[in-house]
Parts: sequence; C-alpha cells; structure tokens
Amino acid sequence: MTKRTEIATLGEFGLIRHLTKKITLTNESSLKGVGDDAAVLDYGNKQTLVTTDLLLEGIHFDLSYVPLKHLGYKAAAVNFSDIYAMNGRPKQITVSIGVSKRFGVEDLDELYGGLQLACSIYGVDIVGGDTSASLTGLTISITCIGEGEKDKIVYRSGAKDTDLICVSGDLGAAYMGLQLLEREKQAFTGDTNFVPDFGGKEYLLERQLKPEARKDVIQMLDEAGIIPTAMIDVSDGLSSELLHIAKESAAGCRIYEERIPIDFQTASMAEQFGMNLVTAALNGGEDYELLFTVPLGMYEQAAALKGIHIIGHITAPGLGAYMIGRDGGEVKLLAQGWSAV
Amino acid sequence: MTKRTEIATLGEFGLIRHLTKKITLTNESSLKGVGDDAAVLDYGNKQTLVTTDLLLEGIHFDLSYVPLKHLGYKAAAVNFSDIYAMNGRPKQITVSIGVSKRFGVEDLDELYGGLQLACSIYGVDIVGGDTSASLTGLTISITCIGEGEKDKIVYRSGAKDTDLICVSGDLGAAYMGLQLLEREKQAFTGDTNFVPDFGGKEYLLERQLKPEARKDVIQMLDEAGIIPTAMIDVSDGLSSELLHIAKESAAGCRIYEERIPIDFQTASMAEQFGMNLVTAALNGGEDYELLFTVPLGMYEQAAALKGIHIIGHITAPGLGAYMIGRDGGEVKLLAQGWSAV
Repeated sequence: MTKRTEIATLGEFGLIRHLTKKITLTNESSLKGVGDDAAVLDYGNKQTLVTTDLLLEGIHFDLSYVPLKHLGYKAAAVNFSDIYAMNGRPKQITVSIGVSKRFGVEDLDELYGGLQLACSIYGVDIVGGDTSASLTGLTISITCIGEGEKDKIVYRSGAKDTDLICVSGDLGAAYMGLQLLEREKQAFTGDTNFVPDFGGKEYLLERQLKPEARKDVIQMLDEAGIIPTAMIDVSDGLSSELLHIAKESAAGCRIYEERIPIDFQTASMAEQFGMNLVTAALNGGEDYELLFTVPLGMYEQAAALKGIHIIGHITAPGLGAYMIGRDGGEVKLLAQGWSAV
Repeated sequence: MTKRTEIATLGEFGLIRHLTKKITLTNESSLKGVGDDAAVLDYGNKQTLVTTDLLLEGIHFDLSYVPLKHLGYKAAAVNFSDIYAMNGRPKQITVSIGVSKRFGVEDLDELYGGLQLACSIYGVDIVGGDTSASLTGLTISITCIGEGEKDKIVYRSGAKDTDLICVSGDLGAAYMGLQLLEREKQAFTGDTNFVPDFGGKEYLLERQLKPEARKDVIQMLDEAGIIPTAMIDVSDGLSSELLHIAKESAAGCRIYEERIPIDFQTASMAEQFGMNLVTAALNGGEDYELLFTVPLGMYEQAAALKGIHIIGHITAPGLGAYMIGRDGGEVKLLAQGWSAV
C-alpha cells in the first residue's frame, strides 16, 4: 500500500518547506525564489512576459484517470506554451495549490514531481507560490514569467492580408485521447480486474496526459530567421484560435480542410467513435501546437520548416473566417469556450 | 430585486470581454495587457518582483458577510502588501477566477469593481488572467508583479543582532473584526428583520473587510532615507512573521508585550468576548501592517516615524524568539498557519 501522510501533520509552513526543499534556481534572472514575500527577478533590458492559468478538479482534470505527476507536468507545460506563443522564453513559475483532506503529502509530491520535471526539461525555475486548504478537491493556479526581445515578441494582432497561416504538429489527438479515457472510465464499473483498452492509442493518451510546449518550434523559427506576424497556441481548438488572430488582427481568414494535419491514430479513433474528425481537429483543443502567420513572400522558408503545415491564408477584414471543405464548400468557423456548469 | 445575468449567456470569451472592457493600462511598464497569450511588461533596469495568492471560498472568505466588492479590493490589496514588504512598488496583477453557477455576471462585476478600485488607488494595472467554470464556489488567484531598485529591495533575511524591530499601525483588529462578523452570523438565524450589531466597531470591520496595503509606510521610509535591514508584511500574525525574520536572518528576537500597538476597539472587543488580547495581536493575522528591522544606530530616525512602533530588538541566533510580558516573564513565540480541513 502506498504511504499516506496527512497534510495536517506538516502544517502550512512545514508543507511549503517540504514541497520546496528540492527546488533549485538555475536561471540567471532568478535572483530570489521561494521564501520571501515575493520572488525577485532581473530581466535587464529584456521584456517580461506573464501568463497565468487556473486548473480546477472536475472542470479541467479528472483524477480518476489523470495521474498527479502528469497533471503537474501538463499544468506547467501549458503555461510555457503561452510564453512560446509570444515568441518568448519561459523562465519562472509560481505555483499555488488548494488541497482538500482527501490528498496526502505523497500526492502533492507526485504533483510537484511533475511540475519539477517539466521545469527542468524546459529550463524554468519555480520561484514562489501559495498553498492552502480547500473544502473540495484540488485547485492549481500557475503564473509563468518569461522574457523576450522587444523586436521579436509576437502578438495575435499582427496578421496581414495574404499572410500564410501555419500550424505545427497535428491536431485533435488530445481531444480523442480524452474521449478514449472517458470511454474506459465508463467501461470500468468497479471491477478490480478491469484492464483499460489503450492498445495502439498511446499517442492519443500522451497528447492528452503529457502534452509538450513547442519550444523546438520557437527555436526552429529563430534559426530560420522567421519572425511570425501573429502567433497563438492552440489550447481551445484551431477554430477558436484562428478567430482570435482574425479579430485581433482585424482580418479574415481561409483554411483548407485537406491541409489540416491529423495523425492516423486520431482519424482511426474518430472513426471508431463515429465522430466527425474535422470537428475534433477544429474544436477539440488542448493541442498546444503553435498557430502562426508569416508573410506570403516567406512561402519557401515556411514550407521548408520541418513539421510545420501551411493550412491557409489571411484575407481582407470583411471576408470572415471560413474553412474550405474538401468539396469546395465554405464552413464558417465558430468559437468554442467553456460554459458555466 | 438585483438583476442577475447567467454567466452562460455570455460564454467564456464574452465573459472575459465583459470583465476586461473597462480595464485601461496606466503604468509605463505595462506594454500589453489582457488579450494575448501573455502580458508584456518592460522593467528596463529595475528588478522585477512577483507574488501570488490563492483565495478559496469557505477557507479564506465567507460570502455570507463579505461583500464581493470588498473581497475584490482585499484580494488585490493583500498582494500589493507583499510587494511593499520587499520595499517595492506593485505595478501589475493577473486575476484568475473560477465561478460556480451560483454566481451571475453582476456578482463578478462587483468583484472586479473592488479589484479595479484597489488597482486605481494603488496605481496598478490588471494585465491578464483566466476565467473558468467551477463545480463549487468561488476561487480567486492573483499574481502581482512589481518593481524595485536593486539596492533597495528588502528581504526577510537581513536582520542583525541589536537591530530594532518596528511595526506599523496596530495589530489584532482584523482578527477581532472577523470574530464580530462570525458572532453576528451566528445570531442571524434567518430572521429577515435581523440587524447586526456593529455600532462602535466600524474600525474592526474595516480592518477585516477592506484592509489597506501600507504604501504610505514605504514612501515614508524612502523619504526618511531608511532602508530596513529586513521586512515582511503581517498576514499570518506578528508571531509568525517575527519567526520568519528570525529564521531567515539566522537570529533571535525579543519583543515587549507593552509595546505591541493595539487599538481601543480591539481591546474592548476582546474584553467583551473574553478573549486574550495579546493572543489576538500575536496570532490573529490579516493585519497587513509592515514589520521591519532597522539598525540600532537609526533609533532616532525610527522613533520619529509617524505611526511606527518600536516593539523590540533582534538578538544573537541562539537566544530564540520570545515576548517579554508585562510581568517580565518570557513567552515563547509560536508560528500559526492553516491546517488541512
């Protein structure tokens, strides 16, 4: 049986000490981390980027199939993704957690283990946070601070008519991974011999449970001398993100259904579930790929980027945001977001 | 009847637009606020301070007696307090909220109204955040970013033997305010004609419901040319904060019971409740006063500071942390923090 230490045995300050004792600072800009009223950072002449995310149990994650270590990893990675989406580099995070009595110290160790693994892989320091009791469930709030060069920070608002629309990796896999996990959760009815059927679907699970931020894409763009005109990460779904770029850039856009990159496992799973594949790719979300625009004149450089797909182009403002289907018909792109439960 | 608009009628993006449309940026360092993957800040040659707080309904606040506007104000002010406690200046906050169906748009407007009021008074910009549905209650996570001059940032760790221990304002009032609110909540048993008895206790309520961060103290210290050797804000109680300074500075401390500043209303309420007044002042918390140390040689300058009380001194490390009682006896100072519920 797994050891379980009641959080109450450590108390607040003991818990903070326990969770932060293994944290070391590696970034030159991290002058002072955990242990004072505020962290102290030094960005010299760089510009500072800040992003934040709130994750609530039952809304953003289901602990019946999400291991806490994966949850920690993902919580960190999705924040890094937001900084990369500005063409910046994540450098520090603060981590606030609210925990109910249901969780033991070992559970939080798992969560922090995932956070620290992600931080070490992406070169980010944990510099502070807050821990608190909670009446129900687990709450995680992460704020990420990053840096970028003034002339290289990329906003959502810079896309121009005729710019090419590019996206990294493939889309819809994390969403299909979630469907798969939900199906196996339904199938599991308390039978202790139950073995979930994930054979051949490992990629979908990985995309859902342990997504990566596309640091590599930012480095590749930098090496290729490409500064996108607009960029966003795909968290709510391609459709939603395209609408953000179109709105902020005061432009329209056209993407082509046949050009949307979709992995074989995603397609196969959608078929098994009888789900519309394109809907999964457009609205599934949690892909954490980078969606960006580059000037038409950079077509060759963009086309030469490994793992980057040119899926359409920006248009004049009045033309709306549409996907051109395989049959040539136009489908209006619609936003997706959460609704109050 | 108050108007109530279901949050679902706005959707996530509609809600973000609604909550952020009145937000303007006033700080030169706020280059880009809400509306991209991350805020963009520019701190030039200043050092950057970051602090964060997580507030959960039922743990940190009770909406049966805390108005949402006050809650917003307090949530912002307590973060500013952390930045002032580093001898810095708060400049930006990010605000993440999780809301259950119980809350309407007007409720969030109240909350944001309080946040914005505090921000406008303290000169801080709201630069980003996250909104999310929640299964139960209200969750608020705020991260505050501030700036400070490299040579003037004050840590908890700089206190030296013989330094004077100073504290601003008075202590224990916010805690007695909480006791008062809890008493009236108990007395209220659903009787619609119930009128809570707060007469003559306004100061206690204000300290609990609408605390201020001591920006004025930081300015006063600056004008007097005083850079404290160590500083912390009193959020968990004087005792707890003294122990933080002692531990981080590897020192001991002595404070004098008779010198602890306590308001008349606090004392009168403690008597009415039959509570130990000094315990309320030592362990009550939520005072958001500044506790700091200055070299003994600055006694005259420190004594001349308006509203600042010299309550004791730092000692050599081995001597522990004690309060000298009115009877001359020594009482060991103990830490207080939350325990898992």
